Amino acid sequence: MQVIADFCVIPIGEGVSVSRYVAACQQILREAGLNISMHSYGTNVEGEWDSVFAAIKRCHEVIHDMGAARISTSIRVGTRTDREQTMQEKVDSVLSQLQD
Amino acid sequence: MQVIADFCVIPIGEGVSVSRYVAACQQILREAGLNISMHSYGTNVEGEWDSVFAAIKRCHEVIHDMGAARISTSIRVGTRTDREQTMQEKVDSVLSQLQD
Amino acid sequence: MQVIADFCVIPIGEGVSVSRYVAACQQILREAGLNISMHSYGTNVEGEWDSVFAAIKRCHEVIHDMGAARISTSIRVGTRTDREQTMQEKVDSVLSQLQD
Amino acid sequence: MQVIADFCVIPIGEGVSVSRYVAACQQILREAGLNISMHSYGTNVEGEWDSVFAAIKRCHEVIHDMGAARISTSIRVGTRTDREQTMQEKVDSVLSQLQD
Repeated sequence: MQVIADFCVIPIGEGVSVSRYVAACQQILREAGLNISMHSYGTNVEGEWDSVFAAIKRCHEVIHDMGAARISTSIRVGTRTDREQTMQEKVDSVLSQLQD
Repeated sequence: MQVIADFCVIPIGEGVSVSRYVAACQQILREAGLNISMHSYGTNVEGEWDSVFAAIKRCHEVIHDMGAARISTSIRVGTRTDREQTMQEKVDSVLSQLQD
Repeated sequence: MQVIADFCVIPIGEGVSVSRYVAACQQILREAGLNISMHSYGTNVEGEWDSVFAAIKRCHEVIHDMGAARISTSIRVGTRTDREQTMQEKVDSVLSQLQD
Repeated sequence: MQVIADFCVIPIGEGVSVSRYVAACQQILREAGLNISMHSYGTNVEGEWDSVFAAIKRCHEVIHDMGAARISTSIRVGTRTDREQTMQEKVDSVLSQLQD
């Protein structure tokens, strides 16, 4: 089952600057060979359900190993059976309907 | 890795009444032997990372099998390494600090 | 416009124990006269759109005043025009379809 | 109070293709003069708390007017008092720590 997901990992209690944890997570996603796109409040990722969630789990493990005792992550995950659709197609579909 | 999660599954395009899909998902969580608590905008669940996410994946599979072609789920998932904490303890911790 | 919402406020960088911030937010919701129900990963709230979001904004203001420099909140918000529906009715609708 | 938010509006029961509703919402955000960036599972927006949430409310109103009887939106919203930070700076902060 193919998914498009979006998630945002928040280490709690480790100071207000969390970018080094987010960078570690980006590294994990890249190494997993997943198609990803980071934005200002999370990261889009597409792939097989198990690969995507294994990578998110790995982010928690690594961020805990880096010293963050508590993590809260919010995830959106979408699946569809009517047709295949990439992350780019979702954006293009909206853009094509916008007036310039 | 133990998690406390909260998730809300939304079948898209299957009419405004989605309770039969949500009920099917509740059944899956129960049968998985997970500790769950449903509320008005999702379900709390606690257990091992892999068991919790296997159950959420199963919800997507079953709801697709029921005829919903598209599903969007939002998930919050928390892990902590400093100590064990149950869902009930999280609520109790806040309640103990509220003025009656 | 009536809404049913669910939200989870996370103070970042203030230590792993965040219950006193969550308790302050509960107090705000109560004083706003909103119908609320706390669970293990957030709080359900129902009311007029403006009242509900004014209360969530007030939570951010108060938690910043308590010393938390950074806050990340996740919110689910639902509206419907086909009929009125309370938080309790959403839960009852699912429960009525579950096998005992 | 300045916010960086990310939100995803889901019209329920209106078929599996929801792009025309999302496009209408993009138009509202543009007309509100907010700084926005659409991605594959939502839209980043930055601005004053009240302007951002007024725009999200307007999205619900317009999408209901277009015929969708039920809408569920998930929102992440962040505020910080230690310093100003733009959406672009959040991304840059992570990118600067990634190995090429």
